[in-house]
Amino acid sequence: MSARRAVVLLSGGLDSATCLAIARRDGFETHALTVDYGQRHRAELDAARAVARAFGAASHRVVALDLRAIGGSALTSDAIAVPKDRTDAEIGGGVPASYVPARNTLFLALAVGAAEALDADAVYVGVNALDTSGYPDCRPEFLDAFRETARLGTKRGVEGRPVEIRAPLVAETKAGIARLATALSVPIAKTLSCYDPVAGGGGAPASHCGRCDACRLRKRGFAEAGIADPTSYAA
Amino acid sequence: MSARRAVVLLSGGLDSATCLAIARRDGFETHALTVDYGQRHRAELDAARAVARAFGAASHRVVALDLRAIGGSALTSDAIAVPKDRTDAEIGGGVPASYVPARNTLFLALAVGAAEALDADAVYVGVNALDTSGYPDCRPEFLDAFRETARLGTKRGVEGRPVEIRAPLVAETKAGIARLATALSVPIAKTLSCYDPVAGGGGAPASHCGRCDACRLRKRGFAEAGIADPTSYAA
Repeated sequence: MSARRAVVLLSGGLDSATCLAIARRDGFETHALTVDYGQRHRAELDAARAVARAFGAASHRVVALDLRAIGGSALTSDAIAVPKDRTDAEIGGGVPASYVPARNTLFLALAVGAAEALDADAVYVGVNALDTSGYPDCRPEFLDAFRETARLGTKRGVEGRPVEIRAPLVAETKAGIARLATALSVPIAKTLSCYDPVAGGGGAPASHCGRCDACRLRKRGFAEAGIADPTSYAA
Repeated sequence: MSARRAVVLLSGGLDSATCLAIARRDGFETHALTVDYGQRHRAELDAARAVARAFGAASHRVVALDLRAIGGSALTSDAIAVPKDRTDAEIGGGVPASYVPARNTLFLALAVGAAEALDADAVYVGVNALDTSGYPDCRPEFLDAFRETARLGTKRGVEGRPVEIRAPLVAETKAGIARLATALSVPIAKTLSCYDPVAGGGGAPASHCGRCDACRLRKRGFAEAGIADPTSYAA
């Protein structure tokens, strides 16, 4: 019997890389899906490729989606700056400029579509509701609503075998994710969480800026877990 | 006071063109959104541009999304044939090969994202549950689930002013849509509904194949309405 398949949304950051490790641990043949949405942090795509390769994903699709034609986010519009040096209270208070309109609905829909095309039973997504920048589409209630949408809006759903949406990190802290990543041998050195990374010279991987929300949450998580982050930071 | 804005999903077919007319009638400044998803029927994009221009849409975005990287549909994979010459019973029975995995979830998410970026209050979508090819993502229950997903997954939603999803044609017949299109002066001659159109020679617009589900439903609708369809059919 062939292995059950899962599509794993892989951004190249720590959370999605850990999700890929969890899907493997759960016994799935993993098919990584990365979205090239015109994000400011293009180095993320290289990180995703490196992680998928290191983990032996059965396939890795990079789907192009031009969200710059829509804009409305610091990550997809050069006219909006990436917020830096925000305090914990600021990071926890309200939806920030790095919010990309409807991003996780889009990404999950792409993953569910890919799952139907690949005859995969599950989608793994690394969203996290605790140590996040106040994104509405990282919350459990959003995920539940999306599950219902996917059940009603897909061929597999009407056939009574909806694609299962798994978000194993939704209630984890960043420290917990750092510990899980270590326990599951995630190639942490290859991951990149930064919204505004600093290009590496001479083919070297990009560095974390150290100042955007994603960097601050990542740094604090590793510190709280007492684990050394092997990636480099510019600040 | 500036006009309220609406994003209108515009494929270039009869239904979405009629939706654009309804949004105008409803007093909205209209912003058309077309998705170039690698569809077999590329001529659809030309039709969408012609309709948006003819109707004086305030803007028209064509967003590129490479669904060929996912496949799984006759419309996005050359390995799957477009079903032709199906009977009414066949068209009404089950999800056909022209189903594109999770398409309307993707399109609606793009439209809601564009609405947030444009500060538009509404999204119009021309889905229709009656005269359709058995697509799960054209049904009212799917739309309701999507509304909840969009409410919970967007900045506007958490701010208590979710983007309104309007599907004014969901319970219409194709004949009713043909009548509405006529009453609202839709440039019907510029629309193209076909999944597998025949290229027009020398810069002429493409013709309907006349044999795919979309053509058969369109032909029957115009016939039932007693309205002449000004577009050309190859069969």
